Amino acid sequence: MSNDSRFDLTARQMPTHWYNIAADFKEPMAPPLNPGTKEPIKPEEMEAIFPMNLIEQEASTERYIEIPDEVRDILFRWRPSPLFRARRLEKLLDTPAHIYYKYEGGSPAGSHKPNTAVAQAYYNKQAGIKRLATETGAGQWGASLAMACQMFDIECVIYQVKISYQTKPYRGLLMHTWGGTVYASPSENTAYGRRVLAEDPNCPGSLGIAISEAIEDTVTHPGTKYSLGSVMNHVCLHQTVIGQETILQMEMAGEEPDVVIGCVGGGSNFAGVSFPWVGRNLRGEGGKKVRCLAVEPSSCPSLTTGEYRYDFGDTAMTTPLMLMYTLGHDFMPPSIHAGGLRYHAMAPTVSHAYKHGLVEAASYPQTSVFEAAITFARAEGTVPAPESSHAIKAAIDEALAAKQEGKERVILFNLSGNGMLDLPAYEAYLSGHLED
Amino acid sequence: MSNDSRFDLTARQMPTHWYNIAADFKEPMAPPLNPGTKEPIKPEEMEAIFPMNLIEQEASTERYIEIPDEVRDILFRWRPSPLFRARRLEKLLDTPAHIYYKYEGGSPAGSHKPNTAVAQAYYNKQAGIKRLATETGAGQWGASLAMACQMFDIECVIYQVKISYQTKPYRGLLMHTWGGTVYASPSENTAYGRRVLAEDPNCPGSLGIAISEAIEDTVTHPGTKYSLGSVMNHVCLHQTVIGQETILQMEMAGEEPDVVIGCVGGGSNFAGVSFPWVGRNLRGEGGKKVRCLAVEPSSCPSLTTGEYRYDFGDTAMTTPLMLMYTLGHDFMPPSIHAGGLRYHAMAPTVSHAYKHGLVEAASYPQTSVFEAAITFARAEGTVPAPESSHAIKAAIDEALAAKQEGKERVILFNLSGNGMLDLPAYEAYLSGHLED
Repeated sequence: MSNDSRFDLTARQMPTHWYNIAADFKEPMAPPLNPGTKEPIKPEEMEAIFPMNLIEQEASTERYIEIPDEVRDILFRWRPSPLFRARRLEKLLDTPAHIYYKYEGGSPAGSHKPNTAVAQAYYNKQAGIKRLATETGAGQWGASLAMACQMFDIECVIYQVKISYQTKPYRGLLMHTWGGTVYASPSENTAYGRRVLAEDPNCPGSLGIAISEAIEDTVTHPGTKYSLGSVMNHVCLHQTVIGQETILQMEMAGEEPDVVIGCVGGGSNFAGVSFPWVGRNLRGEGGKKVRCLAVEPSSCPSLTTGEYRYDFGDTAMTTPLMLMYTLGHDFMPPSIHAGGLRYHAMAPTVSHAYKHGLVEAASYPQTSVFEAAITFARAEGTVPAPESSHAIKAAIDEALAAKQEGKERVILFNLSGNGMLDLPAYEAYLSGHLED
Repeated sequence: MSNDSRFDLTARQMPTHWYNIAADFKEPMAPPLNPGTKEPIKPEEMEAIFPMNLIEQEASTERYIEIPDEVRDILFRWRPSPLFRARRLEKLLDTPAHIYYKYEGGSPAGSHKPNTAVAQAYYNKQAGIKRLATETGAGQWGASLAMACQMFDIECVIYQVKISYQTKPYRGLLMHTWGGTVYASPSENTAYGRRVLAEDPNCPGSLGIAISEAIEDTVTHPGTKYSLGSVMNHVCLHQTVIGQETILQMEMAGEEPDVVIGCVGGGSNFAGVSFPWVGRNLRGEGGKKVRCLAVEPSSCPSLTTGEYRYDFGDTAMTTPLMLMYTLGHDFMPPSIHAGGLRYHAMAPTVSHAYKHGLVEAASYPQTSVFEAAITFARAEGTVPAPESSHAIKAAIDEALAAKQEGKERVILFNLSGNGMLDLPAYEAYLSGHLED
């Protein structure tokens, strides 16, 4: 059913359920807290910003949650997504390692983000919501939600981190094309945005600030709910279609990975590709214990240098408190090109897995990441997103380590998005204008 | 093996041979002529710009030509490409028609162009060529050849039509990312470019001028050959993987198309999707005779208003004379956004098929094309390339005609590329700044 460098699933093999790692964690996760009372937050307290169906999903400990038909009908446009063996890259590196990559860049928006955007738009539509507000970094998420909202006839308002809005203008155009409204954040559109601008008119913005603006927009507009592209449990849950598919595809390839790699910003694509493997480890299934490696930018290293403590998900301190690795909710990340990874904290599920030794973490500076990205693009064809290129860099290092040891090693990474709208960043790298 | 709106072939089902329509034409095609002698051009006279293996392929009348393994190994990255049924678009149009589309935008370069770029790079490599020169309009072709050359370790030099170089800057960045060198044409890099600039310093360029520059570059640089992204018989041949796959996929869908639609500039994507169907018609196979419809911009209407006569393929009159529909080799097309369709003539094979009534043609102005493109993007997700959107516009018109008649009609069109690097054109349309 395949040649030896491409492993395709049939439509029938697309997962029918999302996998919920909360069911397999030995230690239960700590609940989010009400920042006022410091008590576990009640479902109804979250209803100001989320519909009840997603709030219930957020707290679920069911191992498998069925994917609604209406969601699957749209996911079929790009799912099951292909798994490739990077034979040309292996040859270039002259490594005994086998390198596989799952490709999520074939969705209409160019990344894994539509996997959850479609689900969230669906659940909000079911709840009668007419308008969604959200934040976005590089714009992969904002574009994905604009597309999903268009498909479910919901208005979509997006606060995009200003530095990304400026350096990646095509993603804003893409949001317009799908009918979305985009504001550069910090914006004049919210009280919080105006306050940030008053303090620093040149503030490049951050995901934490954009989240604050989107939440303020939500609570000040009747009929509006808030939607998040990463971090939350239900978002990580929706991405597990990726990892479930890779388990079937690696079986087709007749190999088991030694290591599964994903980049991390908020954590959803890493959760998506790795949690089904982590769950397999936790349940003692499979032939060997699979290492799972989260890769972050060294300029925004929440896992590798952050503290594990309760913190806010946004800068204005309007979200519930969540137990997670954090650099502090007021951390302002440098303006790197991997805008999707500029987040001060890490998804509570990924943080929990890291705290309990179920996953590993590494960090890289951006010039080394772009060097890996160019190597990949020239060997394999596909131009990767700067975010995803963090995973490529780690995969190359794993392959070179295997060469050093003279041993085979099976490496699987998630190529979470393509870089077609990030080309100015490549130009900056190629012309020597990129800094760490 | 599919749900009811996506029809995937397995890797095993990818065509092993290209289909050559010259074997099935009842009337033989007229040969290209030496412009000096007006005699049929000899193979050795073309060797200054093409390697002999491609020259032989250009003149072949074998029905099936085997695809080399080295080419197939790379095509597998995006082939077989998916076929979709556009159920959401059908619903929006409230039509009894069934609309199917083949999606070629999933290749690393975002269009069908790599199908022939990889083959041409391979054959040139076999012939010992170290450097290729080419032209490109919107940049889909230039990017594709840069990628293919990188994979076969060949230097790639691209003359991009200046208006596209300016309005679609990301495609140039993509060529750089894959190691290509790009000049805006008319350029100072060739004698012909300098002559054009002397006459009109503001000349927006055209494919005809860019071809002239690429050919001049070729003949003035030892070890260099010329590569073309459309028009030639061997290019149309390489694209027939598209149509062959759609024949299998329509069988999977349990339907036979009434009409097969593709946009035309030079003609290669239309040839690719339609010739296997035309061949089936000519051989009397299949249940019904399938209409094949070529769609061109009304601002560059070579089929619908051009003359059928011998003409040059370029502006400087350096190519052999070819019998084709032409607006005249010095025709300067308006600066529409579908830069890939700004060519003064039509592929000799497509012209021959049109002259003999084997295919139909229609033309549309660009604002109507963008309206169709936005409708499609909002219903189906994928943002189409402006070129491909000509096929969408015609498909929508066919679907509305079916509605008018109250009859079912099965429509198949080729979505030859995505529009991720054409987003400024969408912005111009949405903000009311697009003109016909």
